[in-house]
Amino acid sequence: MITNPISAMISFTCDYNEGCHPAILERLAATNLEQEPGYGDDRFTAEARAKIRQAVGCDSADVFLLTGGTQTNAIVIDSLLHSYEGAIAADTGHIAVHEAGAIEMCRHKVLTLPGREGKISAEELSGYLSAFHADASAAHMVQPGLVYISYPTEYGTIYSREELEQLHAVCLREHLPLFVDGARLGYGLACDAADIDLPQLARLCDVFYIGGTKVGALCGEAVVFPQGNAPRHFFTSVKQHGGLLAKGRLLGLQFATLFTDGLYERLSRHAIAMAMRLKAVFERAGIPFFIDSPTNQQFPILSPSHRRLLDGLVLYETWQQLPDGRCVARFATSWATTQAQIDTLASLLSPRTI
Amino acid sequence: MITNPISAMISFTCDYNEGCHPAILERLAATNLEQEPGYGDDRFTAEARAKIRQAVGCDSADVFLLTGGTQTNAIVIDSLLHSYEGAIAADTGHIAVHEAGAIEMCRHKVLTLPGREGKISAEELSGYLSAFHADASAAHMVQPGLVYISYPTEYGTIYSREELEQLHAVCLREHLPLFVDGARLGYGLACDAADIDLPQLARLCDVFYIGGTKVGALCGEAVVFPQGNAPRHFFTSVKQHGGLLAKGRLLGLQFATLFTDGLYERLSRHAIAMAMRLKAVFERAGIPFFIDSPTNQQFPILSPSHRRLLDGLVLYETWQQLPDGRCVARFATSWATTQAQIDTLASLLSPRTI
Amino acid sequence: MITNPISAMISFTCDYNEGCHPAILERLAATNLEQEPGYGDDRFTAEARAKIRQAVGCDSADVFLLTGGTQTNAIVIDSLLHSYEGAIAADTGHIAVHEAGAIEMCRHKVLTLPGREGKISAEELSGYLSAFHADASAAHMVQPGLVYISYPTEYGTIYSREELEQLHAVCLREHLPLFVDGARLGYGLACDAADIDLPQLARLCDVFYIGGTKVGALCGEAVVFPQGNAPRHFFTSVKQHGGLLAKGRLLGLQFATLFTDGLYERLSRHAIAMAMRLKAVFERAGIPFFIDSPTNQQFPILSPSHRRLLDGLVLYETWQQLPDGRCVARFATSWATTQAQIDTLASLLSPRTI
Amino acid sequence: MITNPISAMISFTCDYNEGCHPAILERLAATNLEQEPGYGDDRFTAEARAKIRQAVGCDSADVFLLTGGTQTNAIVIDSLLHSYEGAIAADTGHIAVHEAGAIEMCRHKVLTLPGREGKISAEELSGYLSAFHADASAAHMVQPGLVYISYPTEYGTIYSREELEQLHAVCLREHLPLFVDGARLGYGLACDAADIDLPQLARLCDVFYIGGTKVGALCGEAVVFPQGNAPRHFFTSVKQHGGLLAKGRLLGLQFATLFTDGLYERLSRHAIAMAMRLKAVFERAGIPFFIDSPTNQQFPILSPSHRRLLDGLVLYETWQQLPDGRCVARFATSWATTQAQIDTLASLLSPRTI
Repeated sequence: MITNPISAMISFTCDYNEGCHPAILERLAATNLEQEPGYGDDRFTAEARAKIRQAVGCDSADVFLLTGGTQTNAIVIDSLLHSYEGAIAADTGHIAVHEAGAIEMCRHKVLTLPGREGKISAEELSGYLSAFHADASAAHMVQPGLVYISYPTEYGTIYSREELEQLHAVCLREHLPLFVDGARLGYGLACDAADIDLPQLARLCDVFYIGGTKVGALCGEAVVFPQGNAPRHFFTSVKQHGGLLAKGRLLGLQFATLFTDGLYERLSRHAIAMAMRLKAVFERAGIPFFIDSPTNQQFPILSPSHRRLLDGLVLYETWQQLPDGRCVARFATSWATTQAQIDTLASLLSPRTI
Repeated sequence: MITNPISAMISFTCDYNEGCHPAILERLAATNLEQEPGYGDDRFTAEARAKIRQAVGCDSADVFLLTGGTQTNAIVIDSLLHSYEGAIAADTGHIAVHEAGAIEMCRHKVLTLPGREGKISAEELSGYLSAFHADASAAHMVQPGLVYISYPTEYGTIYSREELEQLHAVCLREHLPLFVDGARLGYGLACDAADIDLPQLARLCDVFYIGGTKVGALCGEAVVFPQGNAPRHFFTSVKQHGGLLAKGRLLGLQFATLFTDGLYERLSRHAIAMAMRLKAVFERAGIPFFIDSPTNQQFPILSPSHRRLLDGLVLYETWQQLPDGRCVARFATSWATTQAQIDTLASLLSPRTI
Repeated sequence: MITNPISAMISFTCDYNEGCHPAILERLAATNLEQEPGYGDDRFTAEARAKIRQAVGCDSADVFLLTGGTQTNAIVIDSLLHSYEGAIAADTGHIAVHEAGAIEMCRHKVLTLPGREGKISAEELSGYLSAFHADASAAHMVQPGLVYISYPTEYGTIYSREELEQLHAVCLREHLPLFVDGARLGYGLACDAADIDLPQLARLCDVFYIGGTKVGALCGEAVVFPQGNAPRHFFTSVKQHGGLLAKGRLLGLQFATLFTDGLYERLSRHAIAMAMRLKAVFERAGIPFFIDSPTNQQFPILSPSHRRLLDGLVLYETWQQLPDGRCVARFATSWATTQAQIDTLASLLSPRTI
Repeated sequence: MITNPISAMISFTCDYNEGCHPAILERLAATNLEQEPGYGDDRFTAEARAKIRQAVGCDSADVFLLTGGTQTNAIVIDSLLHSYEGAIAADTGHIAVHEAGAIEMCRHKVLTLPGREGKISAEELSGYLSAFHADASAAHMVQPGLVYISYPTEYGTIYSREELEQLHAVCLREHLPLFVDGARLGYGLACDAADIDLPQLARLCDVFYIGGTKVGALCGEAVVFPQGNAPRHFFTSVKQHGGLLAKGRLLGLQFATLFTDGLYERLSRHAIAMAMRLKAVFERAGIPFFIDSPTNQQFPILSPSHRRLLDGLVLYETWQQLPDGRCVARFATSWATTQAQIDTLASLLSPRTI
């Protein structure tokens, strides 16, 4: 029997290469033929909501389960903004670059700030808003309507509690909701550098989501309005945007499972542990990093000779081509990454082989 | 141990009350940890595409897998229309009523025709278009841009081959794409009254979709452009509408499974067989029908005494309240309906019990 | 010298066939080279606002000047609705038919009621809303977000004070803003059947506009939010919709002129007087009416022989072709209609000539 | 009698401070009561179209008359793009900054390039497109759909013929329409540095507009598709966007007048002559410029002492505050600027007064 060369390769290209945590499949199988109402009125969704409310420490939080990140960003942002308002984001923010204009499709401009390593600062935000208000032609411009950040960012970096508190303070002062894209939230909270947890995050923003797709689920993002502050008719907004699943049980069961016995946290910590070992592998091989990421995405700068070592054996994403011939690569670990995969990479990059 | 009274009830409310066909769960489990690329570049999606192309008899068909019906309708319609164009549909069409304005969110008006039992006729369509073109103020009106029909319709009825040929001929003459919403396509094709099959449907329209959510899948609709006539950048449109799943394997595997060894057809025939038995139960109980449906949705007219017999034991949807105190109910069977469920219903409605 | 046969014809096709009242041109000429700020900050707009506030009897009314009716309808409706909300209107309403989908372009469905002679009743509205709230699937449908009526309607009819009070009461109860399209408002208020005036209208709705284009201006509609209740950033909404004129003075000067010394009312009364004479001409000729309109639009039913009498001499709009060979015609008078034009029509239709 | 201090001031704030060229008012008065069809079917619009076709040297050009610049940009761009496509523009482009999100309201992202002095270069454009096509995630991004430039730019600068030819060549190669915003087109073509004329511009782009509002008209922009290449149903698009004027004669007459006997060109040359004298005034006063503009907008850098000299006597726009306490000001001349106004400014800034 011939092994498929593609599937024999190890892939670190992203954190959605595998299916889902086996506990989810087991429970899907165990409850498969139970009859449940559609559109999120099922008992699994009720359970997921209750467990998420507990995990975020907000009894009255509104929780909605959607299928993917771009969809979630578009629906949340659209439901919070008037059409003449835009979303402030780092120019590297996912909504500004890799969502094919999903925010614009909802008629909102993404108002970009330069940011640094994927993050924007309270000072930068404050300066932007001051300049906007001081501009005599502000009424002819898109009005700032909310602030979007990602935790962790597209560069794997995270905000400190202090940075979040400062951003939140500016947002409060300016009456701008603060929205945290948590497509990889678990990985951000589980890393060593993190100094917040879920309940603290919930206190520091107006809405955020807990990414499932990249942290053990087949699909699914759980939107949390911590203060029960979901916009009116949010359900209908989800429907209008095509984001409502008939079999809401699929999402409900997954989040109910992930938030049982700390599974979400355990999976997150595993991915971080693997990422730190991955990082060590590169360091031992003398490979520098483009950015110092504490989370599951690592950005080593590979020389052509390094790339040749991995060629046909290890998959990763080419992030940026550098003028000197090297390239910034992205390696992602996930809940499913194995020690064996790290070992294989290590053996390929070990000094002896170079 | 106390049984949950809700889950003990039998539900005929819809055809998405259960999970999915066990073969899907088995294959999900078997392949769960295989690494596959995201966004539909996985091997399951490739397999699903190949099998669907074969099933529809179009080697060059473009096939895209989306998650739900409202989403699919919005993306397909939006990708085919200019913003000044509308979609012609029966006034009972799903896009005209129960999609929360998803088509309008894409800036398109739904141009409704009165229809009959959920269907529009070639004659009615032709008359509408003639009147439109003859109207001196046509340039001030939304331009007709495509024709939307559902097969089967929201009332369970189906179009005959001849009716489809006539509609298609009008569409060809008027350069209007014909789009068939097949959320319950399997049930339409499997019923006794059907005189078309998948390849014939593919020849009689410009784009259609094969509903998975209601026919054995957890989620998923397979959009087919039979002649390889997908609009340019359709992938990016899907992304912009928030319809792209990172783990496309979830959709790919489901359709690959449903289109292996005729499973989709078998599941569809099962639901129809159950629906015919359900129909017979009502007939034996002397209960009339609001509409003569040959598919998996049945619309008996229940008297208050009939309703009392089912109260707390059988769930169904109240479709329409009649002035005489009776109501039109909707009972749906599906791939998961069991003979035992039909028997229970029959025993409740048997003449002796009234 | 040969006379242009087209321009020699008399036209009753619409109420925007001529330029504007000469007083407007005179004042444009007198102030032409004065320097004024742009975008509505000019002194003419300030004057227009003050005079309109006085005319409507609301010192704190917000007044905005836009260029045309379709634009005004779209901007007002879009600024009042969330995207999942629709505008309730008669199915003959201008927004439902002749605005090329301008409301849908703003993502809102027009929710149509059958109406009668262009009007909807409080009872019909109330029934619709009750049915909507009672519908189990209401959350899957476009939410009713405001009520749109036109005064006078597209059929020339008007609402009585009592009818408006009843509609307003339903709107208050249901928290739905009531928006009155007043593209021909002057003609509605000036007709004999009218039992309201501008201040009364202002008390019976949440927003309305005073049509200028059809009542003596070159262009322009004055939107009035009687209680100072304009949506936040309405100016920016106007700009985003492309409705902001750089030289706002053009609109300001026109409304300032029309609302000086009762000109708007005088012009309106003139058009109504001409319409009543026009009506008498048809009555004397034994020509029946499709509808009994008290305003400047009259809808006589013309036989082929009547049409031949007017052929090449009088222009009018063909409204509807009747099966018996006759047609419903629309004849519109305006502020510019002359007694001579009425006389010419009368001579053509006088019994002797038939 | 007390003179209004505001209106006694001289304003150089913009080029739309006055009404319109007197010839327009005269012709409006002369033809005011002639009956003409609405919506652009009038004889003035026909005349304007014919004269513009002649002026641009394209017998088969499609010409549409709209009311303002933001509206025109939105309608043209929306009619040329699919929703997943964006408009490439300089980050200082009007559509990117001062149109309140009018392009986003049509669901399109503005894809900004850094540019230089308001201009983008063929090289920069080409580099952007190469990088886009080389990006592995391009299908997840907004697709480039057209190129927008302004002539002259928001900084008063112009493109040379060679620069336009190079941009056009890149656009042709990439199948991207080139759209030229000509809100101040006359001033761009009339300046000494210009090396193209209207027919040459028409050959170097796919669509452009001839600004009327800022060059002698009360309102109005003439969109020209030189090769008769207007998108299908452009009229209906204009209507749907709320850009259609019922009394199209107002726009038709203005452009017919401006394009009779070279009036548009004469007015443009006058504004440039005034701008050059204005420039000389600043130069003589030793005041430096932020940018070397050859057109009607001049950007002197004013010190606080200069500003005090003008305080309460001359109005201008504050463009940008500099860290050293000075500010970049914008002074605009127009068709209506008088020598007396320049002389007053000169006397205020003359060396003796400082």
